Amino acid sequence: MNSKCLVIMLMATLAGSICKAQTGTGEIKEDFRSSSLNQPGQEYPQVNSQGYARFRIKATKSDSIRVTLGLGGRGGTKLVKGTDGYFSGTTEGSMDEGFHYYHLIVDGGIFNDPGTLNYYGSTRWESGIEIPAHDQDFYALKDVPHGNVQQILFPSKSTNTQRRAFVYTPPGYDKERSKKYPVLYLQHGWGEDETAWSNQGHANLIMDNLIAEGKIKPFIIVMTYGMTNDIKMKPGGLRDFKIDAFEAVLTDELVPYVDANFRTVADRAHRAMAGLSMGGMETHLITLAKPDEFAYYGLLSGGIYTPAELKDKPKAKLIFISCGSKENPAGVNNAAAALKEAGYNAVSFISENTAHEFLTWRRSLKELAPLLFKD
Amino acid sequence: MNSKCLVIMLMATLAGSICKAQTGTGEIKEDFRSSSLNQPGQEYPQVNSQGYARFRIKATKSDSIRVTLGLGGRGGTKLVKGTDGYFSGTTEGSMDEGFHYYHLIVDGGIFNDPGTLNYYGSTRWESGIEIPAHDQDFYALKDVPHGNVQQILFPSKSTNTQRRAFVYTPPGYDKERSKKYPVLYLQHGWGEDETAWSNQGHANLIMDNLIAEGKIKPFIIVMTYGMTNDIKMKPGGLRDFKIDAFEAVLTDELVPYVDANFRTVADRAHRAMAGLSMGGMETHLITLAKPDEFAYYGLLSGGIYTPAELKDKPKAKLIFISCGSKENPAGVNNAAAALKEAGYNAVSFISENTAHEFLTWRRSLKELAPLLFKD
Repeated sequence: MNSKCLVIMLMATLAGSICKAQTGTGEIKEDFRSSSLNQPGQEYPQVNSQGYARFRIKATKSDSIRVTLGLGGRGGTKLVKGTDGYFSGTTEGSMDEGFHYYHLIVDGGIFNDPGTLNYYGSTRWESGIEIPAHDQDFYALKDVPHGNVQQILFPSKSTNTQRRAFVYTPPGYDKERSKKYPVLYLQHGWGEDETAWSNQGHANLIMDNLIAEGKIKPFIIVMTYGMTNDIKMKPGGLRDFKIDAFEAVLTDELVPYVDANFRTVADRAHRAMAGLSMGGMETHLITLAKPDEFAYYGLLSGGIYTPAELKDKPKAKLIFISCGSKENPAGVNNAAAALKEAGYNAVSFISENTAHEFLTWRRSLKELAPLLFKD
Repeated sequence: MNSKCLVIMLMATLAGSICKAQTGTGEIKEDFRSSSLNQPGQEYPQVNSQGYARFRIKATKSDSIRVTLGLGGRGGTKLVKGTDGYFSGTTEGSMDEGFHYYHLIVDGGIFNDPGTLNYYGSTRWESGIEIPAHDQDFYALKDVPHGNVQQILFPSKSTNTQRRAFVYTPPGYDKERSKKYPVLYLQHGWGEDETAWSNQGHANLIMDNLIAEGKIKPFIIVMTYGMTNDIKMKPGGLRDFKIDAFEAVLTDELVPYVDANFRTVADRAHRAMAGLSMGGMETHLITLAKPDEFAYYGLLSGGIYTPAELKDKPKAKLIFISCGSKENPAGVNNAAAALKEAGYNAVSFISENTAHEFLTWRRSLKELAPLLFKD
């Protein structure tokens, strides 16, 4: 698959995943509770044990409010105005488990739900809601030693700015002052930014929990903004995506800065790159263009590698390819099989009952992390 | 002044500072530019060189949109609907320099301006706008060495949670591995949270710039959530404010955690506490209740100390009291004079032409920092 095809596939998947819910069957259980992503003290939105979401918005003089979550293709959930001036409504069906972005259309204008926290996606801060997943324990905040997420500002000559990145350092990093750590560079998707993996992805909690259970050797994660060329305003911009600008920031500026300012093992064998969706596309392009930079590759709902394009390059220690079962699982599994057949250490992972959304990527990180830096 | 009086004073000031603008005189200059706090790619809101703010919101089918910024007491700025379905309007007068929280009233409902970034204040994520200040250079993002802002999660037995704090470590902290640093514990105001001082306060940039200019010796800043009892939903809750819960989190849990996990000089002489508004009230109560814990005290628009209440306690190395010139400058200056008269090292600072808002506190931090940990 060439990058043009990949771009079109990613864009189609993104577009298709904006409104997502199962067809409703049977009775709605009245065990609704506030979503875990609500702002302090806010009762709504709520979620029930079947994964239905319920919304309630005050707008006494408004004529219409619609929520962009609900049944795909039917324009989301239309709220109904009550005599008390509150609009309310419930999704027609149960939602996929995990995190969903959404917003409101209030009398023709786009606004966020004042009840929820905001998450950067679709190049804007969107409302977020969490449908509790049956396996949510692996990204839960627990009473275990916690690593830190540091905001760093690094100088970037190529863009003439001070750029922001977030760096996860594992528990004990500040105490074990002579120890050096491998590093995973982990990219967000189109329309998101460097906050995504720790905010909606819970990458830090996934790591804390894996480390507490002794399932991985601690490593550092670095997350920065990947939309360095002018693609941020419209998805169509991805068609003209060029990797050069971001590649320069990442490999010429950020990697050296991290190696100089954190206790890293600063070589290829201890450096990984992975990304979700567009971040997978970036990982694919950069690992092929700079094969001496990273030894572990991860594409999370972000395309595949073919044996042909890897030929004659320094061999990756691991090629991890994943997606949700509602995306293109056959494509991912077939790609991994072809790579294995050609002698590569390829691993595929399919997240059950999820689409192009963050639960797919949380689970992917959980599967990827134990495979990294094994020797 | 006892705490009841202080609480009422703080609440009155908070209420009065919600809508703030000078009376308009003369012509409005048409040199409007996007506010520096806009979301990526968003043109509005805009600000002109006189400090007027202009808003533009799409809501084709809405009847009325009002912005809670404008002339105090007149209910903010009413936007007018154009034939293109966009509402627009300009504040009646110029706004105070610096950062302002606001939100929209859209057809009777409270929503944020989709054009701006959000900042936690008034117990909700609010829209933010920045009127460029004539002295904004001291908190600008410059090409100087930058410290990091780390999110830490620390165990809290008294509240049975893993609590969040942000820790500013100065440039060089990770390189100079044997150096130990003093610590300032810095608190937000009512309705804000632990994100306030680095997001809207730019505490990290103020420190980076002071350090780059050689004006201060580097120290660590720790910022955590101070509304630990149930006061978060309504300002009236402050009347029943009890410090015990937060005092336990801060002095029994957070200070020991920071001393164990960061390279601090872990004694009273190298520990300061300061806070803005309600955070000043907390500083006042905790430094009096635990006089062996902190040696430097800072109240930023957050009340005063009297010689009587400090009598017979270990002497503070510094008492810093500040406010905006539109608050109670005489009260602050008189309090400092009385403390000096009684033999205390007291310093007052008045921020010119600002009220109970963040420019007052950015400037206060800039003045306070060089006075800390001098011996």
